[in-house]
Amino acid sequence: MTRLDVAIAGLGMTETGKVYGRSAADFAAEAVTAAVADAGLGLADVDGLLVNPGIGGGLDLRLAKALGLGDLALAAQVQSFGASAAVMVQTAALAIAAGAADVVACVFADAPLREDRGAGAAYADPTIRRRPGLEGIPAAAGLVGPTPHYALAARRHMDHYGTTSEQFGAVAVSTRAWAARNPRAQMREAITVADHQASRWIVEPLHLLDCCLVSNGAIAVVVTGGERARGGPRPAVHVHGFGQCHPGYTERAGSAFGLVTGAAASGRRAFAMAGVGPSDIDVREIYDCYTYTTLVSLEDYGFCAKGEGGALAESGALGPGGDLPTNTGGGQLSGYYLWGMTPLSEAVLQARGEAGERQVDRHDLLLVSGNGGVLDHHATLVLSPHPRS
Amino acid sequence: MTRLDVAIAGLGMTETGKVYGRSAADFAAEAVTAAVADAGLGLADVDGLLVNPGIGGGLDLRLAKALGLGDLALAAQVQSFGASAAVMVQTAALAIAAGAADVVACVFADAPLREDRGAGAAYADPTIRRRPGLEGIPAAAGLVGPTPHYALAARRHMDHYGTTSEQFGAVAVSTRAWAARNPRAQMREAITVADHQASRWIVEPLHLLDCCLVSNGAIAVVVTGGERARGGPRPAVHVHGFGQCHPGYTERAGSAFGLVTGAAASGRRAFAMAGVGPSDIDVREIYDCYTYTTLVSLEDYGFCAKGEGGALAESGALGPGGDLPTNTGGGQLSGYYLWGMTPLSEAVLQARGEAGERQVDRHDLLLVSGNGGVLDHHATLVLSPHPRS
Repeated sequence: MTRLDVAIAGLGMTETGKVYGRSAADFAAEAVTAAVADAGLGLADVDGLLVNPGIGGGLDLRLAKALGLGDLALAAQVQSFGASAAVMVQTAALAIAAGAADVVACVFADAPLREDRGAGAAYADPTIRRRPGLEGIPAAAGLVGPTPHYALAARRHMDHYGTTSEQFGAVAVSTRAWAARNPRAQMREAITVADHQASRWIVEPLHLLDCCLVSNGAIAVVVTGGERARGGPRPAVHVHGFGQCHPGYTERAGSAFGLVTGAAASGRRAFAMAGVGPSDIDVREIYDCYTYTTLVSLEDYGFCAKGEGGALAESGALGPGGDLPTNTGGGQLSGYYLWGMTPLSEAVLQARGEAGERQVDRHDLLLVSGNGGVLDHHATLVLSPHPRS
Repeated sequence: MTRLDVAIAGLGMTETGKVYGRSAADFAAEAVTAAVADAGLGLADVDGLLVNPGIGGGLDLRLAKALGLGDLALAAQVQSFGASAAVMVQTAALAIAAGAADVVACVFADAPLREDRGAGAAYADPTIRRRPGLEGIPAAAGLVGPTPHYALAARRHMDHYGTTSEQFGAVAVSTRAWAARNPRAQMREAITVADHQASRWIVEPLHLLDCCLVSNGAIAVVVTGGERARGGPRPAVHVHGFGQCHPGYTERAGSAFGLVTGAAASGRRAFAMAGVGPSDIDVREIYDCYTYTTLVSLEDYGFCAKGEGGALAESGALGPGGDLPTNTGGGQLSGYYLWGMTPLSEAVLQARGEAGERQVDRHDLLLVSGNGGVLDHHATLVLSPHPRS
């Protein structure tokens, strides 16, 4: 594996949450402009653009024109679902290392929330329950959208390993405790496991407080060569390793479904490239569309043994002051839901030492997880404020 | 720039054209399966999947599940419009060179044609003429879909360089002459410049015979390490160089619009990486959504001086027996319109010496051009049956 000297030099974040009246493309333009400025560069320095639309649509390469970008040496709209942020950073890193581009902006933007409809409306497909024939059977049973599939996965984990709903609750509680320290987080009021248990069912065994937010907004990062990034105004956040795994479990539902996710193999690949193991990681930023996902991903990465994610969460290790700080910005559960850019943005802030009240003291090596689709697409980054030695 | 040892080891093509009753995903599954078999591999060997949907929709990473692919180390849906095929090959090549994946299938599929509607319907947006406010002005003037913008570009080329409609016609004629030798081509009947001139206007100055076909179907290629490809059943087609350019001209319409396309810079990058120049190229496969595009791209790549593309076409150099064989499968004008996979697939066949009656004798170095959007996105590949020395 090529040893890269590539780093994230800039981060741009818009307002997130119930921010109305702006399109995904509007948010994306603001985030890219902010990320480029954060890197101490101008839009004219950008020669690569990777864009990841969420599900609301409207974000594609027309963004280049909206920003007045020209003569790009790399440009694509990329969709690997929740793995996309890390996939874009990997693609940018490979192109930069090969000399095919110098300064690549990677952006996620979505605007699924509208004032005139419910929060989750854009994530439900109103036609799916009416599908004809055999497709109607799972739909009629409620298998509509991502939540029921994650509920099945969580249930299998509970059955197989004895994981409890209270242990999922412990993930929600520690994540919220971090959010309380993050001015950007949408949900900052402290919660208890009792609150989690009392929150309504979304799909059993998932309570409301097991499920992520839905947010409008955008986040962009600027990826460039290590030397250039180290000369910038912000601490360079170096890419030490990356890996993907797209396990395709739903076609092999009898085997690992619910028990092992793509984090296992994508983590192995990223650790191998970085030349480190889970015990070397100081800060974990895990794609947490559900509390279950945090828990199973921590196991898959090797932060505890398989089946011990629940006990780990209950131990308090994941929260502020714990030994394994995890989702230090409040994650997608309590912070903001901008797909893989949620964990990536918080990792950049922590790596730079810019996380304020929630800053983790030791932040030499950070893990970012991207989980997309129903337990399928997965990508991992290992980041560090230090160049690879 | 890293010197790559990466090659195209397999090619898979479905039926193309007015093939009804199958979705883009159906076509894509067939093409990937065929490409993998063509490479002497099985689907279990595939550890990377890049998919490029056309405009009809329905192709995304669910294709992995449809094919039973698992544990993929690289996966994304990629959209850079007509540049996508070469962008996917570049992405695959970089990942393979870095050890991040071994066998990457890249597929384009689309099914815009339906029996119950006109051929071009999927490429027109029936709502666009009714757009409100200022957006309604260009729409009311007929600036709907790609053709009018290419017409404006072609008109500027004519005004500035004196290029004539008959010279565009010469491109149509030479491309059709190649198609006559390709059993896969949709339009094989010989045409003359007089036929071109007599064909109806689509948007002045573009006649019907200046415009590409619309096709259903799919094409896939399998990209892998050079050593592995050289051990396969087919001649390996090595990637010697690649480059992209996304000029963003429509925001700078007063300058190069219509006169110079992204081929100039993407070609320069690809030639530099391959260590060759235009005079070294034996076979040219140019994205020819319009005759104008062939002509201006040939100029931009340096196969003739700027403004002399028309004279070059009239000279007969581009057709069978000519000095600069171009679009030897009939291109998108007369062969099949599967975006950037049209030129790429023909380049692979020519490089392997498998082009039958239309085989070009000297095929040591081949150029593939991908042109997407209105004179904007551009990508170039330089390919060879020989490893890079």
